Amino acid sequence: MPIGVGVIGAGTVGGGVIDILLANTGVIRDKTGAEVALKHVAELRQELLSDFDLSGVRVSPDAADLIADPEVQVVCELIGGVKAARTLILQALEAGKHVVTANKMLLAMHGRELAEAAARNGVELRYEAAVAGTIPIIKAIREGLVANHIHAVYGILNGTCNYILSRMTYEGKEFDEVLKQAQALGFAETPPDLDVEGHDTAHKCQILASLCHSSYVPLERVYVEGITRITHLDVAYAREMGCLIKLLAVVRRVEGEIEARVHPMLVPETHLLASVRNEFNAVYIESDCADATLYYGRGAGRLPTASAVVSDIVDIAVRGGGPARAPFQYTHDIPVRDIGLLEGRYYLRLTTRDHPGVLGKVCTVLGTHGVSIASCIQKDTAPGEPVHVVLMTHESVESSVAAAVAEIDGLEFIEAPTQLIRAL
Amino acid sequence: MPIGVGVIGAGTVGGGVIDILLANTGVIRDKTGAEVALKHVAELRQELLSDFDLSGVRVSPDAADLIADPEVQVVCELIGGVKAARTLILQALEAGKHVVTANKMLLAMHGRELAEAAARNGVELRYEAAVAGTIPIIKAIREGLVANHIHAVYGILNGTCNYILSRMTYEGKEFDEVLKQAQALGFAETPPDLDVEGHDTAHKCQILASLCHSSYVPLERVYVEGITRITHLDVAYAREMGCLIKLLAVVRRVEGEIEARVHPMLVPETHLLASVRNEFNAVYIESDCADATLYYGRGAGRLPTASAVVSDIVDIAVRGGGPARAPFQYTHDIPVRDIGLLEGRYYLRLTTRDHPGVLGKVCTVLGTHGVSIASCIQKDTAPGEPVHVVLMTHESVESSVAAAVAEIDGLEFIEAPTQLIRAL
Repeated sequence: MPIGVGVIGAGTVGGGVIDILLANTGVIRDKTGAEVALKHVAELRQELLSDFDLSGVRVSPDAADLIADPEVQVVCELIGGVKAARTLILQALEAGKHVVTANKMLLAMHGRELAEAAARNGVELRYEAAVAGTIPIIKAIREGLVANHIHAVYGILNGTCNYILSRMTYEGKEFDEVLKQAQALGFAETPPDLDVEGHDTAHKCQILASLCHSSYVPLERVYVEGITRITHLDVAYAREMGCLIKLLAVVRRVEGEIEARVHPMLVPETHLLASVRNEFNAVYIESDCADATLYYGRGAGRLPTASAVVSDIVDIAVRGGGPARAPFQYTHDIPVRDIGLLEGRYYLRLTTRDHPGVLGKVCTVLGTHGVSIASCIQKDTAPGEPVHVVLMTHESVESSVAAAVAEIDGLEFIEAPTQLIRAL
Repeated sequence: MPIGVGVIGAGTVGGGVIDILLANTGVIRDKTGAEVALKHVAELRQELLSDFDLSGVRVSPDAADLIADPEVQVVCELIGGVKAARTLILQALEAGKHVVTANKMLLAMHGRELAEAAARNGVELRYEAAVAGTIPIIKAIREGLVANHIHAVYGILNGTCNYILSRMTYEGKEFDEVLKQAQALGFAETPPDLDVEGHDTAHKCQILASLCHSSYVPLERVYVEGITRITHLDVAYAREMGCLIKLLAVVRRVEGEIEARVHPMLVPETHLLASVRNEFNAVYIESDCADATLYYGRGAGRLPTASAVVSDIVDIAVRGGGPARAPFQYTHDIPVRDIGLLEGRYYLRLTTRDHPGVLGKVCTVLGTHGVSIASCIQKDTAPGEPVHVVLMTHESVESSVAAAVAEIDGLEFIEAPTQLIRAL
């Protein structure tokens, strides 16, 4: 008996899932013996359906009909957004249907409620496509690394940001220019805020943090900083220091707490994450038994994302009569660590008037806050031009660095707020 | 009810599995809700057991006792080798026990027989640790990429070879010297043939080829070439051409056939596989929906390998009463492609006497075989010293290149057999 699949939303990802379920059931059967069959598509916009051969598939404008369809055992929610998607998923779970979704924003905001509804109804709620698209990172953490305590996760999880930073790095362009190009090419949304302000990455960070540590991490406790303040100057200075700038989601276990944060970081050029270019995603994980592992692939796109959605459907089909697996286990209640407690190295770019004794005064301020300097770049500039002093600190505490920077920015010869970027 | 685990063999990997099952059952329970319990260890060498706290665990010198133990539902075969391991696994499968193994040589030689025994008895035979150690590559292919036709797999699957080639690359040393170092450090076995002659990689290649294409690939049909002929000269010339030399397992689908081959390759420095250094493994996969994905981690070592073994145990535990999954599906019977049909670019290093017209004659021979040259390096040498002429061909057919090289090696001014390395 094939397992019946219903797809709500025939947009980019939903359309990809329909494509795969129409074209690739043979390869799925070959690899697993399982039969999956598309039974129902719910889509208001009829024009989106004209590209598919949906003979034998029910089509409804109303998702409630799909959820009620007795031939549908697995409901794929692929409409995105929060409010309607939440309602539909809860309805499907309460109706005893398994649910597959790619909706990271919804999971980050309401994952706890959805997980409880899935458990209450003894059904699966799966979300492989929600984090890092086609990369099987949820599976790697939940299954491949199941025997491991996960010490640290470093993820490049937003293709738009990685594309923009790559173009800034390899073409020496400014953020605004690259963003416009990316929007023209369809690599960036308009408005771009969800991506470039780091929120999309924060949603994925929330999911990974909760999953890795079996503890609920509230989204508002994830520290978020986007890439809009990164300039080509920073990219160029970072390269002089042998580093690239990447937007990373970081999840670490530190002193009994969980660090969950999203911000740009200087990554050494020799690190594998530095090789992850353009719109690709990757996740680097350090754990107690497996040591370092890395997973790389496309974080977005019609078929890559749909490939992950279908892998969830097939997992449910293969499981057969086996017990449903909880989407999240909130076994623990681990505090989320304050960003001020972070310890690391910091890149600081100061903008000053050309003035004798600047470096001495800055170093004095840093020193009084316990921040010491590992390296320094200052270049000759034309008279009257502002001078950039770029410093890399030794290992320091974030709250001390922040206090020092606040004091530095109050000095009379400082012409613009100091740029601070954390280093890996 | 916890699932009971028996471990046959308490050597490196078996000892690691015992360690994890004694120390990390809490994290497994947190992530999955599943309970796994070590119930029985079979090991002849009592001295290997003194490091473990095995209170409450049965210990037998005889694996038959472990297989017969009604408290054991999952048998881990971790003794390695072929003959005894095959007998034990078949006994366990016939006794209705699930089996987990890391034994690639056994799977490559007898995978078909073992898969049939598992299917006949309705039990699982799992082998995540057999290929690429801690990297969940079997899971990625069978589950993460389940909806994909897999076009190509390029794997760095032998840590010893990758370590040796890395040291030759970054320290400019010769093969023999690095091999001796690697043996002293425990990174290479004595004798090293199974690794450096490519056979270990071929075993893994056989497994991946059969798995990716749901078709049985006989081990003797996997083309194998090791790294013993690679010299520091080749490594240096490759770098001049912007490439590193890696031992790769390649599985491709070409014109209705399966390519399954193991040999050194020139990999461009910008390719992600070029960043995989020292003893690390990685697998790069191209597929129709997911596009390019890469998986990276430790291919060997006590805890990394054991981590993969335990992930298989937990998968069986989590599945609960669900149906057993076939270890291999031999749905198809796809021919394995002859190496002579391979098309690609070739690195050729000729050793000649310094002699006018050498390059012209060589190019003429290549030309008559339809092989054209993309680039050439020839350096000034001291009088009387042999001259190395290094050529990179355009896309050519292997059988033509081989015929041309045979003819070239018969020319009177050629002083040593021409080195041929395929390029990615």
